[in-house]
Amino acid sequence: MAVVLIGFMGAGKSTAARELADALGQRSFDSDELLAERFGHSVAEEFERSGEAAFRAAEEQLVCELLASSAPQDVIALGGGSMLSARVREALEGQTTVLLEVDADTAWRRVSGNGDGPERPLAADRDAFARLHAEREPLYERIATAVIGQRPRGGLAALAPSLAVLGETGGRARLLWARAASGEYPVLIGEGLLSERGPEILEHWPLDRSGSRAFCVSDGNVAERWGTQVGETALQITIAPGEQSKNLASAERVWSALIGAGMTRADHLLALGGGVVGDLAGFCAATYQRGIPVVHVPTTVVAQVDSAYGGKTGIDLPAAKNYVGAYHQPAGVLVDPAVLATLPEAELAAGWVEVLKTALIAGGELWERVGAGAEADGEVIFACARTKLRTVAADERDGGRRQVLNLGHTVGHAIETATGYSRYRHGEAVGLGLLAALRLSGLPELRDRVAELLAARGLPVSLDGASVEEVLEALGRDKKRTGAEVPFVLVQEPGDVTPGHAVPASDLRAAVQELAS
Amino acid sequence: MAVVLIGFMGAGKSTAARELADALGQRSFDSDELLAERFGHSVAEEFERSGEAAFRAAEEQLVCELLASSAPQDVIALGGGSMLSARVREALEGQTTVLLEVDADTAWRRVSGNGDGPERPLAADRDAFARLHAEREPLYERIATAVIGQRPRGGLAALAPSLAVLGETGGRARLLWARAASGEYPVLIGEGLLSERGPEILEHWPLDRSGSRAFCVSDGNVAERWGTQVGETALQITIAPGEQSKNLASAERVWSALIGAGMTRADHLLALGGGVVGDLAGFCAATYQRGIPVVHVPTTVVAQVDSAYGGKTGIDLPAAKNYVGAYHQPAGVLVDPAVLATLPEAELAAGWVEVLKTALIAGGELWERVGAGAEADGEVIFACARTKLRTVAADERDGGRRQVLNLGHTVGHAIETATGYSRYRHGEAVGLGLLAALRLSGLPELRDRVAELLAARGLPVSLDGASVEEVLEALGRDKKRTGAEVPFVLVQEPGDVTPGHAVPASDLRAAVQELAS
Repeated sequence: MAVVLIGFMGAGKSTAARELADALGQRSFDSDELLAERFGHSVAEEFERSGEAAFRAAEEQLVCELLASSAPQDVIALGGGSMLSARVREALEGQTTVLLEVDADTAWRRVSGNGDGPERPLAADRDAFARLHAEREPLYERIATAVIGQRPRGGLAALAPSLAVLGETGGRARLLWARAASGEYPVLIGEGLLSERGPEILEHWPLDRSGSRAFCVSDGNVAERWGTQVGETALQITIAPGEQSKNLASAERVWSALIGAGMTRADHLLALGGGVVGDLAGFCAATYQRGIPVVHVPTTVVAQVDSAYGGKTGIDLPAAKNYVGAYHQPAGVLVDPAVLATLPEAELAAGWVEVLKTALIAGGELWERVGAGAEADGEVIFACARTKLRTVAADERDGGRRQVLNLGHTVGHAIETATGYSRYRHGEAVGLGLLAALRLSGLPELRDRVAELLAARGLPVSLDGASVEEVLEALGRDKKRTGAEVPFVLVQEPGDVTPGHAVPASDLRAAVQELAS
Repeated sequence: MAVVLIGFMGAGKSTAARELADALGQRSFDSDELLAERFGHSVAEEFERSGEAAFRAAEEQLVCELLASSAPQDVIALGGGSMLSARVREALEGQTTVLLEVDADTAWRRVSGNGDGPERPLAADRDAFARLHAEREPLYERIATAVIGQRPRGGLAALAPSLAVLGETGGRARLLWARAASGEYPVLIGEGLLSERGPEILEHWPLDRSGSRAFCVSDGNVAERWGTQVGETALQITIAPGEQSKNLASAERVWSALIGAGMTRADHLLALGGGVVGDLAGFCAATYQRGIPVVHVPTTVVAQVDSAYGGKTGIDLPAAKNYVGAYHQPAGVLVDPAVLATLPEAELAAGWVEVLKTALIAGGELWERVGAGAEADGEVIFACARTKLRTVAADERDGGRRQVLNLGHTVGHAIETATGYSRYRHGEAVGLGLLAALRLSGLPELRDRVAELLAARGLPVSLDGASVEEVLEALGRDKKRTGAEVPFVLVQEPGDVTPGHAVPASDLRAAVQELAS
């Protein structure tokens, strides 16, 4: 199968095709260039002479021929409008289709800017251009198996190993390129990536095993179920399942085991498990010899949609949760939604709250799906990962934008504290926190909708096991602890979520009281 | 006193003067511009018309008038040649003199490049230009109280608080701006900065105390002697003096104490002490709430010339030293050489080995002084700090260049291991390691000179307490542990030191054997 670059005009597909083909040692093709050759004049001129319909027909013909005749790993850049053809879209099925994202402003600047590039028949009017962009991007996103927002810092060659994996999966997996201030990495999401093909993928992705031995950290449950699926390891370290393992003693056990097994900075860690394993192994990787690569292989809903991305790592101290940690971006994340099928119902439901939270933050198509009750399948997990990674790209260190990811967590944490971390699962408490946040946001109808969604999964929608006073007191301690007004994340509407809101004490009381009633 | 910008042509002094004056809310002056006004034509034309001598006389006159009439904190950019005048240099004494460093290539590109800037009478011939640069830079360095290599990322305004401190010290302190991949910070070095003026300086430097409370980590000895000199703190945490405190239990004590005292990410840590305190407090700062600012106030020779800079932090585990840590650049470093006078003789001598190592790496003037037996005074510490910071700027994470800082440490560590960390102080072992490294470098005469320097301070020059075999065995374990050939740092000559050399086993044996004989 070929590697097909798609995206809006001005995304840089032609240049990228040449760059990627060079990296892969393959040929590159550009449908617009080939069309111009066939016409004997520019694409713009043909558009002008024969009209859009005739042009699209010729384009469809050429693109289908090109795709049919391409050799594996050939790199093909397609004109931004060619995907309007159902025949083209059909021909793209099973190919490795790479969307190079570009925002409308950048695209406009590039195609209208200096007149150096080829003429673009549809780039005459800025407003029409922006409308076209808004219309086309969702189409590209549906077709793409790889979505590349910010390009790899060192060039597109960094994508090659991941594109090779995509090629082997025949369109059953998808790729994201994650970039944050201190690191960048590929994210592969697809059914069977661990459960069926784990050993062969992790053998050469994202790090070449010939130069780097793998050391695996997991918990007892996960290790038993999936431990053999990570391929050959120099060492498997198993911790007891549960939040109580996320402590300094476990970190010391991991560090000491790595020292004992002679791990060096040339090797890497695999974090196979849920949030606890990811946070602990991530922290050990951040600090072992001042930092070694860590590959996350998340096996719970929360880890697959949220905690495996973004580089937050840490452990709990007896006096405070998550107070010791580091930012340490992974070297890669491998996500197999199929493993979720083995999780207990109640854990799946609690994890789904993080999906709900992410959908509220994202809005758009993700909210439409999740608001209609969609499960955490591959598509939903992919969309959640994109939302999370976009947020982290804008603000790795929690200085501003990243705080939106705390939606529902302020009251959620207070409920967990007030109930001694025993009454609710984390996700359940966050679900209640979401209800409070929506009340504070002045959105009673959305609150009702979210309560329905929670109830439909058997998740709690009212407070139990702690009094209103106890929850408010825990919120007060949080305020004292962070040395500032507890800033709330509020929702204007799905897709419009902002951090840093001060909330009157009376409103807060009312929102918690509503949970208790 | 004024802030006077000096440096070679093309350093960007005129622009910097305007930028800094804006930041300080003061006026800026440019001696070349004022001269051109006085002449009624360009500086270049005057140079041409009247010759260099007459030009320099006029320049000297104007610069002296300008300095005499300036208001405090006025920012003055001086022509690169004006410092040739002894009268000008005298007038600069006690001023805050900021050297904006520029390399010869960059300077040449800037002044010869596009012809946009003012004409430069001495920038006609490239070779002559480079010679002039090499001749002038040492002169600037001797005059400068602040040396700015890489400029602050956010602009020169970042220097303002440090320049204010310099202004208050009346030329008794010096400033470096440190930049590495993950952070940048000011370094103030001067007699009395802690011992006499600690509380007032640390009250507002480098962080504004009104927004950030200080939490201090120190050891028992240092706390007793200097604890009151850091000004008001929210908490003072004291660990037991000595390497055995650099462990996980101490880190947990520090983290827990910070939690207990309600420290937030708006606050900062002061690391007051030697290498152990710096490494431990730095690691706690790197990991407390995923990173808080740390200000280093080093009180030992090793910390003042080496370990306080560059962001390496960490602790020991029972199985291996320095195996858990993080890179975390400080928010600032305050160095008072006067505190060294209170240290025991043997500790001073052992610390001096790190000065010797740094001088071998730096070569030039620093080696001339240290090779002649100079003490670790303010000037030497300043030069050592510059050497260290330059190395870290090129390679924060030990990927290449930074490894030169391990000169003498490979064999040194092996000796420490073989003698159970009890026979020698760290510096003493590194001194022996330097002798071995110079033998391996094929420099017997330099080895003899270094042995003399060590012996003159009562430092060991021969191995005792472990056999040659034991040291070689420890070197072998090191090789196994790091998973690679032990790469040696070798010396071509002082100032020309390179990492990554493989060394034949027989040479290594001979070098260690020589120590034992």
